[in-house]
Amino acid sequence: MKIGIADTMFARVNMGGITAETIRQNDKEIEIERYVVPGFKDLPVACKKLIEEYNCDIVVALAWVGKEDIDEVCAHEANQGLINAELMTNKHILKIFLHEKEAVDDEQKQKEICIDRVRKHTLNALALVKGKTALLENAGIGKRQGYDDAGGIQ
Amino acid sequence: MKIGIADTMFARVNMGGITAETIRQNDKEIEIERYVVPGFKDLPVACKKLIEEYNCDIVVALAWVGKEDIDEVCAHEANQGLINAELMTNKHILKIFLHEKEAVDDEQKQKEICIDRVRKHTLNALALVKGKTALLENAGIGKRQGYDDAGGIQ
Amino acid sequence: MKIGIADTMFARVNMGGITAETIRQNDKEIEIERYVVPGFKDLPVACKKLIEEYNCDIVVALAWVGKEDIDEVCAHEANQGLINAELMTNKHILKIFLHEKEAVDDEQKQKEICIDRVRKHTLNALALVKGKTALLENAGIGKRQGYDDAGGIQ
Amino acid sequence: MKIGIADTMFARVNMGGITAETIRQNDKEIEIERYVVPGFKDLPVACKKLIEEYNCDIVVALAWVGKEDIDEVCAHEANQGLINAELMTNKHILKIFLHEKEAVDDEQKQKEICIDRVRKHTLNALALVKGKTALLENAGIGKRQGYDDAGGIQ
Amino acid sequence: MKIGIADTMFARVNMGGITAETIRQNDKEIEIERYVVPGFKDLPVACKKLIEEYNCDIVVALAWVGKEDIDEVCAHEANQGLINAELMTNKHILKIFLHEKEAVDDEQKQKEICIDRVRKHTLNALALVKGKTALLENAGIGKRQGYDDAGGIQ
Repeated sequence: MKIGIADTMFARVNMGGITAETIRQNDKEIEIERYVVPGFKDLPVACKKLIEEYNCDIVVALAWVGKEDIDEVCAHEANQGLINAELMTNKHILKIFLHEKEAVDDEQKQKEICIDRVRKHTLNALALVKGKTALLENAGIGKRQGYDDAGGIQ
Repeated sequence: MKIGIADTMFARVNMGGITAETIRQNDKEIEIERYVVPGFKDLPVACKKLIEEYNCDIVVALAWVGKEDIDEVCAHEANQGLINAELMTNKHILKIFLHEKEAVDDEQKQKEICIDRVRKHTLNALALVKGKTALLENAGIGKRQGYDDAGGIQ
Repeated sequence: MKIGIADTMFARVNMGGITAETIRQNDKEIEIERYVVPGFKDLPVACKKLIEEYNCDIVVALAWVGKEDIDEVCAHEANQGLINAELMTNKHILKIFLHEKEAVDDEQKQKEICIDRVRKHTLNALALVKGKTALLENAGIGKRQGYDDAGGIQ
Repeated sequence: MKIGIADTMFARVNMGGITAETIRQNDKEIEIERYVVPGFKDLPVACKKLIEEYNCDIVVALAWVGKEDIDEVCAHEANQGLINAELMTNKHILKIFLHEKEAVDDEQKQKEICIDRVRKHTLNALALVKGKTALLENAGIGKRQGYDDAGGIQ
Repeated sequence: MKIGIADTMFARVNMGGITAETIRQNDKEIEIERYVVPGFKDLPVACKKLIEEYNCDIVVALAWVGKEDIDEVCAHEANQGLINAELMTNKHILKIFLHEKEAVDDEQKQKEICIDRVRKHTLNALALVKGKTALLENAGIGKRQGYDDAGGIQ
């Protein structure tokens, strides 16, 4: 099995490095391919190439979104492209985005959310690549990445 | 005939379980395939795989959308992806989304809308898979899922 | 020649029935295929199936859009999907949408706009299927469906 | 060489006629194919058909956009479809849109902007079809259609 | 290796010329193909043609976006098209957009941001075409184009 990591120069945290470290802490055998692009709008084709040219079975796409409205529009474009890349390849690409708007002007909080989200979604990727019901026990229980779980409604 | 159920860890209600239960209460024979993903932006490729790799004839895609504006943007992206997946496969994917904005900060109401919508749309899926005029008698009469029917305008 | 009619259970007016009636009043020979889906986001794949699996030469897609902002987002998604379905099949799909926002809380006005729009666009479909210049004499003269014509600017 | 003209019944100015006239004033030999559709959301598939079924080398798509917000959403959908049609055919489709919002409630100004834009973009089409550097001398100098040129920044 | 440059008549700075100059200052051997279109919505198909018909290994798409809301919508459409072109070709297209909103009514500042962004992204293109880890040392350190780097969060 091979997992792809696509990240950017734009991000203010080494999201790709944290992903690689989390993978190795949890899986010693899965192969890793890394792809670094300038900004997150470059991620869709990078992820598609990781799947089609580097034979990755699953990819994590790592994006850091600035606080301006234009950044949010770009994030929307990137997400659409990533979903299209998934549909063209029939492989999952986990879309891990940190939005500065989640904690405007609080860099430490942004970093904290980012790291938590990257680590949890990396574990999700390692599970999801094993099959379509690997996450079944977690269905509908309000899991969150970047924050505490919301939990199920009783 | 085979029906696919794709749902998420993010949802705060076991939407996939309710769907499976509703199917079995109404159809003892149709096969069921389940697929659980982290969040609803992962649903489009999961549904496409249910159709193309697991031979489902129809799929229900189950999403729980948070109350923030960014959640609504993600829901828009997921819906676009699901419609694209339908166009690529010529199969229906029922897009069953609960939006927290429908009942902000009222968890019990959210759960109630969600369950009603899931149950009614599961019945729609069981009808729709039988053919293009199976729902003909209900055309243009203001049916609603999650709420009481609006009814036709006299 | 064969014309497809795709409509919904969600609509509060029998848009599909009015279309079928208008076709028969104006063309006794063209074949009609009907497809009824739950909501208008289900229309794109239904229209594509009418073209590819039922050999329709043209399709009318009939949608009734609720008054909430989320309904408008869904209408946007449906329109994008319908245009994509046209591009994938090289056939016209007339996109006939009634938006409740056009006459908020005035059901009779909504119904009146809807019926006028459906009837006029059905005639457009019957013309358009005959060839690319069948509507030439009406080019650039401000035709409207659902309302009086705006007319050309002198 | 063959140029396609796709326009609408919705437009309040005979945009297709002005295009045809401008072509003939500047090029006596290029063949012209005309396609008239009801509204501008019907343009993408019409343009694709002009390219694939009528062998046009380039197409001008002519749209008149109403002043309401819903009209702008439709214009966005049409533009996305036109760009997709270009990507599917590897041919240029010039997207010539007059927005009533450019001169709200001033019909004469709308008509004036429209005619100027149509004429200038028709000349662009006649140049662009000749090759990828036919417009090189105009690169980066702030050309505008519908208005006076903005010019380059010194 | 061959690099494509696609730019517009609409831009108020010679973005294509600056790109070509920057390439030559840093790489004497890579071939250059230039493509000039009227406006930035014409860029997606131009870039796809540069890749498929002119065999470019990477493309830089250069856009100048006006200050009106409609210009921002067009920029969104162009970006979606460019990402789709990347997914259809498995080649990178660097999307280099100057938005007048970044420095409203300050032409000199717009020009300054534009030139900085074009130069830095041209270097990114020259690196990226060499392979997927050519930019690895810059991952996650908050690089910016058009502005000073944001830097990584400590």
